[in-house]
Amino acid sequence: MANTDDQFKKVISHAKEYGYIFQSSEIYDGLSAIYDYGQNGAELKKNIREYWWKAMVQMHDNIVGIDASIFMHPTTWKASGHVDAFNDPLIDNKDSKKRYRADVLVEDYVAKIEAKIDKEVAKAAKRFGDAFDKEQFLETNPRVVKYQEECNAILKRLGQSLEKEDLADVKALIEELGIADPETGSKNWTDVKQFNLMFGTKLGASAESAMDLYLRPETAQGIFVNFLNVQKTGRMKIPFGIAQTGKAFRNEIIARQFIFRMREFEQMEMQFFIKPGTQVEWYDYWKATRLKWHLSLGMGKDNYRFHDHEKLAHYADAAADIEFKFPFGFKELEGIHSRTDFDLKQHEEFSGKKLQYFDPEENKNYVPYVLETSIGLDRMFLAVFSNSLQEEDLGDGKSRTVLKLPAVLAPTKAAILPLVKKDGLPELAQKILEELKWDFNVTYDEKDAVGRRYRRQDAAGTPFCITVDHQSLEDSTVTIRHRDSMEQSRVAIDDLKSLIEKEVNVRYWLQKMNDL
Amino acid sequence: MANTDDQFKKVISHAKEYGYIFQSSEIYDGLSAIYDYGQNGAELKKNIREYWWKAMVQMHDNIVGIDASIFMHPTTWKASGHVDAFNDPLIDNKDSKKRYRADVLVEDYVAKIEAKIDKEVAKAAKRFGDAFDKEQFLETNPRVVKYQEECNAILKRLGQSLEKEDLADVKALIEELGIADPETGSKNWTDVKQFNLMFGTKLGASAESAMDLYLRPETAQGIFVNFLNVQKTGRMKIPFGIAQTGKAFRNEIIARQFIFRMREFEQMEMQFFIKPGTQVEWYDYWKATRLKWHLSLGMGKDNYRFHDHEKLAHYADAAADIEFKFPFGFKELEGIHSRTDFDLKQHEEFSGKKLQYFDPEENKNYVPYVLETSIGLDRMFLAVFSNSLQEEDLGDGKSRTVLKLPAVLAPTKAAILPLVKKDGLPELAQKILEELKWDFNVTYDEKDAVGRRYRRQDAAGTPFCITVDHQSLEDSTVTIRHRDSMEQSRVAIDDLKSLIEKEVNVRYWLQKMNDL
Repeated sequence: MANTDDQFKKVISHAKEYGYIFQSSEIYDGLSAIYDYGQNGAELKKNIREYWWKAMVQMHDNIVGIDASIFMHPTTWKASGHVDAFNDPLIDNKDSKKRYRADVLVEDYVAKIEAKIDKEVAKAAKRFGDAFDKEQFLETNPRVVKYQEECNAILKRLGQSLEKEDLADVKALIEELGIADPETGSKNWTDVKQFNLMFGTKLGASAESAMDLYLRPETAQGIFVNFLNVQKTGRMKIPFGIAQTGKAFRNEIIARQFIFRMREFEQMEMQFFIKPGTQVEWYDYWKATRLKWHLSLGMGKDNYRFHDHEKLAHYADAAADIEFKFPFGFKELEGIHSRTDFDLKQHEEFSGKKLQYFDPEENKNYVPYVLETSIGLDRMFLAVFSNSLQEEDLGDGKSRTVLKLPAVLAPTKAAILPLVKKDGLPELAQKILEELKWDFNVTYDEKDAVGRRYRRQDAAGTPFCITVDHQSLEDSTVTIRHRDSMEQSRVAIDDLKSLIEKEVNVRYWLQKMNDL
Repeated sequence: MANTDDQFKKVISHAKEYGYIFQSSEIYDGLSAIYDYGQNGAELKKNIREYWWKAMVQMHDNIVGIDASIFMHPTTWKASGHVDAFNDPLIDNKDSKKRYRADVLVEDYVAKIEAKIDKEVAKAAKRFGDAFDKEQFLETNPRVVKYQEECNAILKRLGQSLEKEDLADVKALIEELGIADPETGSKNWTDVKQFNLMFGTKLGASAESAMDLYLRPETAQGIFVNFLNVQKTGRMKIPFGIAQTGKAFRNEIIARQFIFRMREFEQMEMQFFIKPGTQVEWYDYWKATRLKWHLSLGMGKDNYRFHDHEKLAHYADAAADIEFKFPFGFKELEGIHSRTDFDLKQHEEFSGKKLQYFDPEENKNYVPYVLETSIGLDRMFLAVFSNSLQEEDLGDGKSRTVLKLPAVLAPTKAAILPLVKKDGLPELAQKILEELKWDFNVTYDEKDAVGRRYRRQDAAGTPFCITVDHQSLEDSTVTIRHRDSMEQSRVAIDDLKSLIEKEVNVRYWLQKMNDL
């Protein structure tokens, strides 16, 4: 197996080559950490969004969706805490005028020591061969133990300083470690300052009346401010949920790892409003339910794990991530957060409006607690795409590149291929396309030998190839080839619709979720 | 029939009462010209978007979709002309410090004269009764003729000054007419200045490296800059189209008429790349095809008309609007524009990259021409919603409020209602809901008398009510009630799915488009 760096590079280049993801404004040399979805990417993204929406909204009678605007009243972000606390610690180099995240400078320093450890391990492994015991080596080799202790001490101090917002100590740490500007080598640093990650803009034209706005850094607040409107007009009874998908924006200083962390991204969030005191039971319910949603896509149970947060955000009384095995290791894919009544109470305080629910069973008013599930759509895209991209050994020195997307998510469900470009086969293939297109995204391809077209569709992620040959003219049958197994079978043209339907319909995939 | 102002007010209040549209950030007293879509609005908006996407992308083998980011490289907007020419003429009052659109001040002045004309007409109509001939009166009454000539002269001068960008003359006109600040009466005006309508923000944290960005004022440019990426990776052959839906932002000084003109809105655009010289034929094709799409929804042929532009934008060689009869009159709903090779050539110039297509039939390279169809999703929402909202006289002094949304677009397809809340009827109703929810958005309602529940679903726009009664327990049948006709029929529970499917499936609606 290729190493993870190579695998990740392959993901990025395949995403471009097959029209999934392009660099934003590429003809103008791009914008950092912003990407565009191409003809296949737009469909895959749409299908993921729809799969989430159906599972959350359509399947739950007590969950409804909304679509709130990106622009919100600026007081929203005071209430939510983003104006005061949504910051990164930044430091400028006085000579180069370059700006860095102070914590990342320290972490990169630690990473260099860790690289030394890896080097020692590799050397020893080579020296001892089969007899090498890595665990024992790490625990006993004096040099490695010293490195390890050094790393731990630095990270501990950094963590404590950040938690106490002791930015002077972060700077002192950088100076003590002798960290230099990675580009110029200068050690002439400014103080560390907090930098807010929200993008600002101005609404209105008049200097006097213009209002400072932010682009929302999360979609959740659009749900909190609409909580009562939805509850009352929708006659919702607790427990009930409000779901939403939409763009959010964060002015990340360091945005790496392709579409994993972008400055413009899309969230899929659901806030579930519950009776105070029931949050533990709902936390467990939504952890289990969201994991089932992921597992229903069949991307491998071992690729997921829970990470329970020990350190909690100020609004949470419990939080866990569903982590996924990305090409660069296990990372957060989705978060499940027990947010208590923090947000609604903050909005009560800042707006002066009551945001309470009258519980007919309890016969009293209260501010509901909130259980939140929050997943990044682009991150989910990367999980699906990178997991699906495989290089398959076919024996005899042959191999194929195949994008084994879950069929329910695949951009194109079937390619219709005339075996040859004559004898009326293209016409029959077009006729089949004209019939199937009412129900599915399908495509037509007559260029190159059919084997080459199969490979092209494999790499593009199309689950079915339908080949029209001379026999088709006689008995109205075609071959249908399955992308993953490469098996072909002969079927009646009239049966194509129901055959494909069974494999790609959301209903059949969501049923797997129920069966888990 | 109610007058149009009342009708429009009713649309706005009904949209709120039934969870379609809320004022944005309402608990903080809202943001001007920005709205949130509630639980029903989010579904209606999604369904309109999907209906457009299927008609444009899924049904056309030579049209693909993309999803470009809102943030684009700032040079994009120099190339597109938005930095230089996307302006409104503004004027400040020096005393009140209020800012106004200069052209709107003049237009409002003219509107006041027009109101005088209306008053004269009303007076005369009253005086002459049945004998009153309005046309003749307008042409012959000296006072009215003078008013009319005054209006025409003012509007002509305003138009000419704006076209020549002679802002000094716009100011002179305001002063000559003695126009005062509508709020304070002051006539102490500044010069007229152009104000750019794009929202700005800054990408990146460092003072030196921060980049001035704009929120895109239109989605089209995301398609132009990706033209070659899509063409090459998608192996597209001209003629082909690229479609996109997404948010755009314009800092409108005056944003009126509810969701008709918003500062944050969503577009659905398709750019069709064609051989130069074929633009007339494709212009006619897309005008006809887009009108058919609208007509397929069955909202009345008389509610649409074409408006061909005489004055063309700098990039266009032909342009027409499909206008719709909104509560406030016929207004632009969609635009069809023949954009020539203006945009691609501008991006060639500003990026230094060739944006050409090699035509294998012609055996030469060229910059394609572009035919564009552009519709505002929110505007389409308003068209559908306002047209569907009806007050129906049921005779005997009774009436009902019904939202006759096209069934394919309705947020909820069916409501399942147990006749009474006992005898096992709720359980059977829930069982039906559990089965139907796999395929449709359905809801359950057991509160109040069934007649009242019917009215509630009528007003919410739900096409079908399925009522479970005692007979249902015996013979597994239910009644299904049609929202528009209010007719009820008894059907087997097992037939419900196919019955509803036939009425709501996109396929059946798009077929109407083909049959037109």
